[in-house]
Amino acid sequence: MNNIYVDGMGGDNAPSEIVKACVDATRDFERKIHILGDEEAIQRELAKYEYDKNLIEIIHTTEIVENEDEPAMVIRRKKDSSMVVGIKKLKEDPRGVFISAGSTGALLAGGTLLLGRIKGIQRPALTIVLPSEKGPTVLLDVGANADCKASYLVQFGMMASVYAQNVLDIKSPKVGLVNIGSEPNKGNELYKETYSLLEQSGLDFIGNVESRDIIGSGADVLVCDGFTGNIILKLTEGLSSFIFASLKSTIMGSMRTKVGGLLLKPALKEFKTKFDYKEYGGAPLLGVRGGVIKAHGSSDARAFYNAIRQGIIFQEKDTLEQISNKLVETK
Amino acid sequence: MNNIYVDGMGGDNAPSEIVKACVDATRDFERKIHILGDEEAIQRELAKYEYDKNLIEIIHTTEIVENEDEPAMVIRRKKDSSMVVGIKKLKEDPRGVFISAGSTGALLAGGTLLLGRIKGIQRPALTIVLPSEKGPTVLLDVGANADCKASYLVQFGMMASVYAQNVLDIKSPKVGLVNIGSEPNKGNELYKETYSLLEQSGLDFIGNVESRDIIGSGADVLVCDGFTGNIILKLTEGLSSFIFASLKSTIMGSMRTKVGGLLLKPALKEFKTKFDYKEYGGAPLLGVRGGVIKAHGSSDARAFYNAIRQGIIFQEKDTLEQISNKLVETK
Repeated sequence: MNNIYVDGMGGDNAPSEIVKACVDATRDFERKIHILGDEEAIQRELAKYEYDKNLIEIIHTTEIVENEDEPAMVIRRKKDSSMVVGIKKLKEDPRGVFISAGSTGALLAGGTLLLGRIKGIQRPALTIVLPSEKGPTVLLDVGANADCKASYLVQFGMMASVYAQNVLDIKSPKVGLVNIGSEPNKGNELYKETYSLLEQSGLDFIGNVESRDIIGSGADVLVCDGFTGNIILKLTEGLSSFIFASLKSTIMGSMRTKVGGLLLKPALKEFKTKFDYKEYGGAPLLGVRGGVIKAHGSSDARAFYNAIRQGIIFQEKDTLEQISNKLVETK
Repeated sequence: MNNIYVDGMGGDNAPSEIVKACVDATRDFERKIHILGDEEAIQRELAKYEYDKNLIEIIHTTEIVENEDEPAMVIRRKKDSSMVVGIKKLKEDPRGVFISAGSTGALLAGGTLLLGRIKGIQRPALTIVLPSEKGPTVLLDVGANADCKASYLVQFGMMASVYAQNVLDIKSPKVGLVNIGSEPNKGNELYKETYSLLEQSGLDFIGNVESRDIIGSGADVLVCDGFTGNIILKLTEGLSSFIFASLKSTIMGSMRTKVGGLLLKPALKEFKTKFDYKEYGGAPLLGVRGGVIKAHGSSDARAFYNAIRQGIIFQEKDTLEQISNKLVETK
């Protein structure tokens, strides 16, 4: 067991980029990968590459989860989808990992309902790994729990600390609380209570972090409720694309600016890469009884390769067990 | 009465840019302006300009509210500050307006405690006017109320609609609810309840607006609780400055990019202006019994001039009375 399962049909660039990522991953990590999806379509992609046939196995499925599918309905209505079958594999193979670029909502619903929670964990959380100058920051919850209790947020901090330590190789992860002011008494009732619980949690709590400081806060883990996290996630995406689109139209405005843009192009491309969530591979669904890694929906082969890599480390470092152990230490 | 009061000592560029804005405003609007602050410092600035001496009057005050001052303490500890005296003027002169670029927290606390709420308004709200391609959008609450009830949010929508109609000249303001999904059943308990109240409110409610769509949502008014609004406000500021700073360092990276940057400079400057909150002048503190306009802390003369202009329209259009009237119509 201890298998690696990949959703071959999830995301904007499936199956082509997913299959390419799997081929690259088998070569670099020498681990066998089970790709779930339409056998014919996946074979057609595989035929483009040279690879070790012993390291790739296809598990044929007939359905595909679409972003439009109602997440809660997917388990019942798309039983033979690559995503549902993939999640179910983790029930038979509790130390397996499943990596998918498919619908976040469906992955969350499927993961929670099919696998259940780690014993003692009150709520699973969706995470995202944010780019920052000093390295990656894990932000959670970004949408699994619109209504939270303070104790959930403390557990989010604990789970993400274990993940950051194990998978992102951050020795002693610093935990910040997203808030509307830096002083301890800031925020709404939920955040005031969370602040005092975090102080007593045994985590390396560095205090409140205002949203203007999310990039470069010095925190390795940033905790918030799922409503706030989802607002942050989507605002960051929306604002970045708006600024880059406006920049592009500024450059296209005249001959003078076009020449300027041409000179800047390679540097701008590099700069844009910094903001690209794809560079950070995947982010885990934390708290469910199974290693579920969500890759960005628009993942290319490189991004998905990184997500597979994270999945492998997640597994090799016994992250699920570490979370259970840490739960005993953390109040 | 019906006076215009200006905080001569508030903001990063006081009193010089504030005084310049007042001089420009008296010339263009032919209204008398009372500037509160250190008489000598203000006279020194006024001496630089030609202006109608009948249209500017100084009200001497001896103290200055700093951003570091604990907002709730300002009324008691800095009784002779330009801000506290200015707010108090609205008690004697209920149809007056007060414009300040000083501490937002102190202005909120002072406005709420000294002036009280408009009859029937449950909570005052801080607003901000966001730039968008199609024109300004009023976002509120951006920090006055960290904990909200659904009924507060409906009143925020109502007050901002009156403001948008009166002061920003938007005929029939469309109201959106900031949320984490576009469907009616999205969000946490507060937002689900607010959605159904807004549907019945008589406002032109266009539904949920995800944070990725805040710019270009088509809404003229965007409603949220003060915690969420403050997160949005500061994340927008933080992310924009981070992107522009990174862009600048990209341009400075090599000779090639420097030349490119030089060619783009005028266009980039224009583009940056689009994102500059200062261009939109001020934003009102809505719900208090008085016309209080908050200008951006780093307002230059042009931004503050716009804030004064908005204050004058606020007054001339009887905005406070309109809010009271609308309160009767809106459930």
